[in-house]
Order: sequence, then C-alpha cells, then structure tokens
Amino acid sequence: MATNYEDQHPNKAFGWAAHDSSGLLSPFPFSRRENGVDDVAVKILFCGVCHSDLHALKNEWGVTRYPLIPGHEVVGLVTKVGANVEKFKAGDRVGVGVIVGSCMKCEACNQDLENYCDKLIFTYNSVDWDGTNAFGGYSDSIVVHQRYVLRFPDNLPADKGAPLLCAGITVYSPMKYYGMTEPGKHLGVAGLGGLGHVAVKIGKAFGLKVTVISSSPGKEADAIDCLGADAFLPTSDPAKVQAAMGSIDYIIDTISAVHSLPLLLSLLKLNGKLVAVGLPNKPLDLPIFPLVLKRRLIGGSDFGGIKETEEMLEFCAKHGIAADVEVIKMDEINTALERLAKSDVKYRFVIDVANSVSPK
Amino acid sequence: MATNYEDQHPNKAFGWAAHDSSGLLSPFPFSRRENGVDDVAVKILFCGVCHSDLHALKNEWGVTRYPLIPGHEVVGLVTKVGANVEKFKAGDRVGVGVIVGSCMKCEACNQDLENYCDKLIFTYNSVDWDGTNAFGGYSDSIVVHQRYVLRFPDNLPADKGAPLLCAGITVYSPMKYYGMTEPGKHLGVAGLGGLGHVAVKIGKAFGLKVTVISSSPGKEADAIDCLGADAFLPTSDPAKVQAAMGSIDYIIDTISAVHSLPLLLSLLKLNGKLVAVGLPNKPLDLPIFPLVLKRRLIGGSDFGGIKETEEMLEFCAKHGIAADVEVIKMDEINTALERLAKSDVKYRFVIDVANSVSPK
Repeated sequence: MATNYEDQHPNKAFGWAAHDSSGLLSPFPFSRRENGVDDVAVKILFCGVCHSDLHALKNEWGVTRYPLIPGHEVVGLVTKVGANVEKFKAGDRVGVGVIVGSCMKCEACNQDLENYCDKLIFTYNSVDWDGTNAFGGYSDSIVVHQRYVLRFPDNLPADKGAPLLCAGITVYSPMKYYGMTEPGKHLGVAGLGGLGHVAVKIGKAFGLKVTVISSSPGKEADAIDCLGADAFLPTSDPAKVQAAMGSIDYIIDTISAVHSLPLLLSLLKLNGKLVAVGLPNKPLDLPIFPLVLKRRLIGGSDFGGIKETEEMLEFCAKHGIAADVEVIKMDEINTALERLAKSDVKYRFVIDVANSVSPK
Repeated sequence: MATNYEDQHPNKAFGWAAHDSSGLLSPFPFSRRENGVDDVAVKILFCGVCHSDLHALKNEWGVTRYPLIPGHEVVGLVTKVGANVEKFKAGDRVGVGVIVGSCMKCEACNQDLENYCDKLIFTYNSVDWDGTNAFGGYSDSIVVHQRYVLRFPDNLPADKGAPLLCAGITVYSPMKYYGMTEPGKHLGVAGLGGLGHVAVKIGKAFGLKVTVISSSPGKEADAIDCLGADAFLPTSDPAKVQAAMGSIDYIIDTISAVHSLPLLLSLLKLNGKLVAVGLPNKPLDLPIFPLVLKRRLIGGSDFGGIKETEEMLEFCAKHGIAADVEVIKMDEINTALERLAKSDVKYRFVIDVANSVSPK
C-alpha cells in the first residue's frame, strides 16, 4: 500500500516534490513529525537551490528515493522548541544545512565532524531516524533535532545567506582543514558557479590573492569587477596557462564535470594543494609525476560539521560575505532548474518559500 | 667529434656504463674533475642498485643520456677535501645520494629542499655545472660539492646502509612532511620492494602499526617474520580487502606499476592520507568520491633534501635500521638487473665497488 504522506505524521506540511527521474516538481501536501523534546520546529523563509538538488531530482547518482522534496540551504524562524532545547527559542532565525541527523557517538561525531558520520541523515533523500522519508526545504516547515540547527547571525540576509549553508561551508571547511588561509598566498578557484563565487569571497576575506580558473572566458569581467577576484585564467588559452604554471599555492576545485587534473596541478607551486569539492561522476586521470616532483597533494572534503558551519556563518557575517542570488517563487522552480543545468544563473537561485509555498 | 671521457678531466676514474637502451653495462674508463675548493673527493666502497637505475638504463622515461653510469646510493671514504671544506676530512665515511648539485639560492634551496630545486643536478643522467656528464656511483670514485655530501653515521653498515640514501629518504621524508608518524596509528605499505621494506622498518621505529599491502601473497611470511610487519593484506583476496576497509590511517604507496587507487583509498579511515612515491608511467584512475566522502588526500613526494637525509641516517642508525641487501660484484650487475626487473631480490642489490671495480 502506498504511503499516505499527508497522514504519516501529526503536523500538516506543504512542499513541492518530484516523483520520478524527470525531476519535475509539483505541489505536494505531506506532514512533519510532532516536535520532540530535542526538536526545533522551523517555519521556512528561504531555501537555496543547490546543484546537488538537480543531481538528486534526476537520479543522476542512482540513489534517489521518490517522492523527493529537495532543499538543504534553509533559513527560517523557530516556531516551537522541545523541552530539552535551550539554545533556541520561538522567533529565532536559524539555518538548516545538509544534514539533520547522525549517530552522535562515533569518532567523527565526537570531533564535531557529523558530516563524516557513517550514519548521517541528509536533510533530504535520506531515511530519518523514525524510518520515514527525510523531506527537504522546498517546503513550508521542517522539524529538526537541535544538534543540527544552526544559529543564523542577525546581520546575514536570509535570502543571500541561505546558500552559505551548503556552498559556503563546502569551500570554507577545506580551506581551514588543509591550511589554505595564510594571508598573501595565492588561491585558485577552479569553476565559477555556486561554490566558486563564494570561494572567491571567502578567499579574499582570508587575505589571499585569488585567481578564478575557468573554461568560460566570458566570466572574466564578472569575476574581477563583481566578485573581487585579482585575476582570471581562461583554461582555453594555452599561453596564459603556460605563463601561470607554478604560480598558485592552493586550488579549490569546484568543477563537477570531468576535467583535467594535470592542467590544474601544473599551476601549483612546490607544496601546492588542490582540494576537490565538486563531484565528477567518472574517475579523472591522475598522473603521479606532478605530485611527486613538486610534493603537491590532492585532497577531498565534503561540506562540514555543525560547529564549523556556525563558525563559517559568523565569519561571513563579520566580513559581509553572502551569495549572489536570484530570488524566485516556488512555481518558477522547474524553469530555474532548467537554467541551472545550463549554468545560467549568477550564482544561486533561492526560493522565497514563505511567500510562495502554501497549500491553497 | 665524440667526447673523450678519459681525458675530459684530470683525474682518472673507472666505472661501468651503458651505451644504449639495451641497458647492458660494461667496463668504462673515464675521468673525474679536479677537486675544487668546495669539493669532496670520495673513494666509493658500496653503491646500491635502485629501481630508477633500471628505468634510466633502458631509457624508459625517455630522457637518458648515454654513456650512462648509474648509481645514487653511494657510501665511500673521503680522499681529499677542498680548502673551503670544514665538515669533512680525508678518511671520513660519507654518503652521496640522489643529487650532487642545485642552484643554492632559490626558495626550495633556501628551505633545505634542494631536491625540489628547478636546477638540481642528479648524481647521474644529468649535466653537471661544468657542462659535462654527471656520472654515478657504479664507479671507483666521485667528486661532489660539499653541500651534497652526507655524514654517514659510524654505526650504520656501509653495504646495508647505502640504500637508505635513496630508498630510505624517499619513504622517511613524506612520513615527516605529511604527518604520518603519530605512534599507535596504522600505516599501510603498498608494495614490498626496495622502498617498501625500508618503509616497514621506519614505520615500526616511529611506533606505528604496519600492514604490508601486496599483490603477491607469497610475501606474507617475509613481511611479518623477517621485516616485523604487524599484518599482511593480499590485494588478491576480496574478503580480506573488504574486512580491512576504513582501517588504515596512512599509506605509503611504493608501487611503480599502474595499480588501483580506489582499492587503496577504500582502506583509509576518515582523514586518511596516501602518499605516492612510486612513479607509474601512465596516469591512474582517480575517482573523486572516495576523497570527498572521507576527507582523504593523495600526496606526492620525491626523495628529500640534504639536511633531512642526514636526519634520516641518524634516525636509522639510532633504531638499527638498514636495508636487507644482496651484495654483488660489479661483473654480476647485468644479471642482477635482469633479476631486479622481475622483483627477484630481497630487497636491494648493493655493489661491492671497492673490491670489484678497477681498471685492470
């Protein structure tokens, strides 16, 4: 018997869901669980549209559970807190990012690295601890265990700040972990999309010289004039690539398409570091010589733990960093996703949930 | 006009050289430069046979300059020092490793990382600063600038200690640089040859648990009983590989053939590090997911600088570490190289130069 999502839980909720790999979203009445003693209920204001949403909607990673309500860049207002919750109260502005649960007792959880817990629960496309589907932020409300709810600084705008909850932490966390924040060093940001444009801003805030590395020469003016990058390297220009060889200390590689690692590695100095945060769905060619001859490394990193995500939000608030966004209404989402698939957005769509998602 | 190697320099010398990509070595009279004010002249006692020698002899990297006298794991006795040399005197036992020169003024040289200098001069198959061929340690003598001559500790045996000058520093240096020395952590050594067997010993001396990872199940007894490894993982056994997944903190990957990075990465824990020191001549397949999902990294490292090589020699002397070697006479070299190509040696050939290389 098909699950009745409207009556599964006691609290009525309303969102937009996809039901198959067409990825088309449509209105979807469902329900949220009763607020438990450790839970925080949130009325959603804004939700960012991450590129991962697109992969999941179209089942491009082969693991999508339909019906799917995407959304893991959520900013909202607390409407209710459980008896054990002291950190938040009704009316507080909060964020919900990529995860809503983990085991809370493994080595990763104990180090505030819930994002690497083997039993983590993603904000959507996951099975929640009670066995029901986890539904994401393309919806009017969400109920989340307090551990996974983030303080959202007063001076961060809710719409432009929402994408920081995934895009922001995904580039901030590796910069901290891999030691890529030494002022005066030279950061390359490979790929200028949702992640890349935030990486440019965070890099500048750390005092780095920032070069955007892109296969799209047309992005140069925007990179430098609007985002504040110091330089732009079009990978389609062999002479400019040649001139830039060995000149960069760190690269944040946000490219999720198959691309040339040898080209990026050649740009790095001795002891240079490349961190991959994009997720190409096929292996890349890795020649070992460029690593050995200049002691370079390639690291990976996913988003980040809750504590570090709050640290990142404070950092962004302090430095006036937010995403460049195009705010849309919920019923514009299917068109927006088509544009996102063509990288036709500067640089993140954010859904004005509070003003466009309702059951009528 | 062909170069007359016997009369090129004032000091007569004698070695064994290859003249083409057959790689066959034969007796070769040549000459060494006059000992300059910063030079140290060395009578060679022993010289290790590194796998790189084989690559160079057969021109497998496409950059060999013939005639070629290989050899960069040299232990010998000082016979003469220049006027500026204070660190060494005649009769001292010294080592000469992979390099005999560098620019001495770049960022790498200034950080004691001469091995990463863009103008480094390899001990063989390089052009020396005077424009002549650099000839290696398969010869009776060598003249080297003092900066590149290494103190060789009294309690290190000259024959078994010689391979440390390349194999030893090549595994020691990355363990230090990448932070792979925390006692109690778990080191995997992938590939059990010249480098791998020294890595096992150095890993144990750092207080690590050491597992040898090998495609040759027959090496298990030797790894554990003779070299002191704690465990052996045959990569040909899927059940054992499955059981070992996520159990290792660091891997030193000494494999120079094309091999599976995904398999090795799957063995690493959260924050696990794999350092490649072998040099496959084709790119390896690198899927990005295993890096991102557990914040793993792949680093490279070549041998090491002079200061760190001396530190490594002291470390090995203190911990009683030397290579397991098979000492050969010079006229056995061609047979030895055939055996080395089949990995038929435990674990390093060392040439008894002093007793088998002479012009008669």
